[in-house]
Amino acid sequence: MNTSSATSLFLRAAWGEDTPQAPLWLMRQAGRYLPEYRAIKARASFWEMVRTPDLAAEITLQPLRRFPLDAAILFSDIMTPLPAMGVRVEFSPGPVVAEPLRSPAQIEALRLPETQEIAPFVAEAIRLVRRELMGKPVALIGFAGAPLTLATYLVQGSGSKDYEDFRAFLRQEPALAHRLLHKLTELTIRYLRMQIEAGAEAIQLFDSWAGLHDQEVYRSFGLPYNQVVFSALAGLGVPRIYLAVGASHLYPLLASLSCEVVSVDWRMPLDQVRHFLPHTLQGNLDPAVLLAPPAIITQEAQKVLRAGLGGAHIFNLGHGVIRTTPPEHVACLVEAVREFNRHTEVST
Amino acid sequence: MNTSSATSLFLRAAWGEDTPQAPLWLMRQAGRYLPEYRAIKARASFWEMVRTPDLAAEITLQPLRRFPLDAAILFSDIMTPLPAMGVRVEFSPGPVVAEPLRSPAQIEALRLPETQEIAPFVAEAIRLVRRELMGKPVALIGFAGAPLTLATYLVQGSGSKDYEDFRAFLRQEPALAHRLLHKLTELTIRYLRMQIEAGAEAIQLFDSWAGLHDQEVYRSFGLPYNQVVFSALAGLGVPRIYLAVGASHLYPLLASLSCEVVSVDWRMPLDQVRHFLPHTLQGNLDPAVLLAPPAIITQEAQKVLRAGLGGAHIFNLGHGVIRTTPPEHVACLVEAVREFNRHTEVST
Repeated sequence: MNTSSATSLFLRAAWGEDTPQAPLWLMRQAGRYLPEYRAIKARASFWEMVRTPDLAAEITLQPLRRFPLDAAILFSDIMTPLPAMGVRVEFSPGPVVAEPLRSPAQIEALRLPETQEIAPFVAEAIRLVRRELMGKPVALIGFAGAPLTLATYLVQGSGSKDYEDFRAFLRQEPALAHRLLHKLTELTIRYLRMQIEAGAEAIQLFDSWAGLHDQEVYRSFGLPYNQVVFSALAGLGVPRIYLAVGASHLYPLLASLSCEVVSVDWRMPLDQVRHFLPHTLQGNLDPAVLLAPPAIITQEAQKVLRAGLGGAHIFNLGHGVIRTTPPEHVACLVEAVREFNRHTEVST
Repeated sequence: MNTSSATSLFLRAAWGEDTPQAPLWLMRQAGRYLPEYRAIKARASFWEMVRTPDLAAEITLQPLRRFPLDAAILFSDIMTPLPAMGVRVEFSPGPVVAEPLRSPAQIEALRLPETQEIAPFVAEAIRLVRRELMGKPVALIGFAGAPLTLATYLVQGSGSKDYEDFRAFLRQEPALAHRLLHKLTELTIRYLRMQIEAGAEAIQLFDSWAGLHDQEVYRSFGLPYNQVVFSALAGLGVPRIYLAVGASHLYPLLASLSCEVVSVDWRMPLDQVRHFLPHTLQGNLDPAVLLAPPAIITQEAQKVLRAGLGGAHIFNLGHGVIRTTPPEHVACLVEAVREFNRHTEVST
């Protein structure tokens, strides 16, 4: 199934090859900075875009029509599989859980849906995108939220600076937290397997809020569930990417993570991160750089590329494209990455 | 002037003494978790509380009446000195800058007020608190926002997850950013000198948003201005505390910071932080622990205390007291810290 781009630059680097060029894709490459995305958004709600395969596929492909990127990432949201558990999720614009989970009864009431019930529209969108990408050297990445990060939203209810309610919940109700994480882990495995079966050629596990926790809390509530998810997806021929943000203090723990790629934010240079992690590194240009003049973009991209030498590297931003980014600045970045030959450069 | 508590446990540890007990105070120890604070807040706006010396002094002293803490921190806000520059700041509940600064004209127009114009009500509140604390072993801490963190609010305008507009501003307008930081540095020096003259016995520089930036950005826009502030306050007989949050990746750079104490958040255990920093360490219990049952609070406090051995340590939270914390849990924490003898314990 995953043959069309089996030798793509992205997949080679994801599997650990120190490729001559760094493959390139950008988190939130399909999104609000593109006028063609805003045109769709003007006539459809966020849930409509996510749940209509034609729209989700179209949005996924929009950045590929502008830029020669090495991967597409399915347009969706980490909250997508949760309604199938019986959770009501709105977007305004960030995710809002109408009834945050706090009680044992609420957590017991969460359904564990069968694989085909979770989000059939996602499987269909993946098939549509794969059909469009047929024969092109562009890999399609599926994704899901990590159990700890999904639990963060489910318990807190809506966006927050430090997610204090959730952090307090872990301290007050550790057994209940583990029951919730257990269910979310099983959901995530089913959801990602479904994406792989539909044609996703790599998967990324977004643990956006892992960095809120100290090492001990992460070792108890985060790491083991991520390991279970990744182990369940081993041997399927699909590289596994883990993303955490603001998590420099957790890198020593991530060294043992059973995945091929770790995506790192912009805070620490890749050559320092390599001391901790044996994985392919993905990242890590500060998305704010894309607001700077083109000469700065080229210069900062080269710094990231040089810091990425000495091991496999997938170029990306440290976090999503900022809404106000001019699309022509993305074009400038793509050119800078394309022109950089990793085999003739000397490591910083 | 700073004689009443010159030998207080807090000041001894702040100056680097490996004291037998860890002195203890809590960030946001005066605040919404206390019913007596909420009673004042019900009849006064945030600015009224900050600008009325009697109220600010009373709120500062409220936690001291409940708990045998080693330090008081003046009730105020890092935004307090900004209106004297001509900036309109509201609270709803976080700070909101009505007209975010972006243009050269706006930044040129910022007034640099004379010391006595900045916030005379703060000087008066400090004098009132010192009078009340006379003869008690409780040190009074003054504070200000670090230039980079003040600039974050001034440019972004209001709270944000990643302060993308500010981070983009640093990339787009570095020269303008430096002009703004220069002015804020001078303001901060004047404001903190005034607090010291009025009777503050230690000062804390809150760089709450330093951790948003990579090392290179922090080295250019953060560190040098913090050094200038701290150097200007050297030799005044008052220990200087630096606080950053989510800044584990910056610890190698903070090693050279010209201050006596570094306050660290809950993310990394103090024994690991000591590998980076030669300062007295302040911190770093996760504030979420104070929502857990008392037995857990005692156990987690002991972990922090043990990790703090091997050098001077001021016990504190890694961030402010969470609004929903039961005051009796704070009492439990205070007792756990008081009972811990650092000289008879073995380091972890």
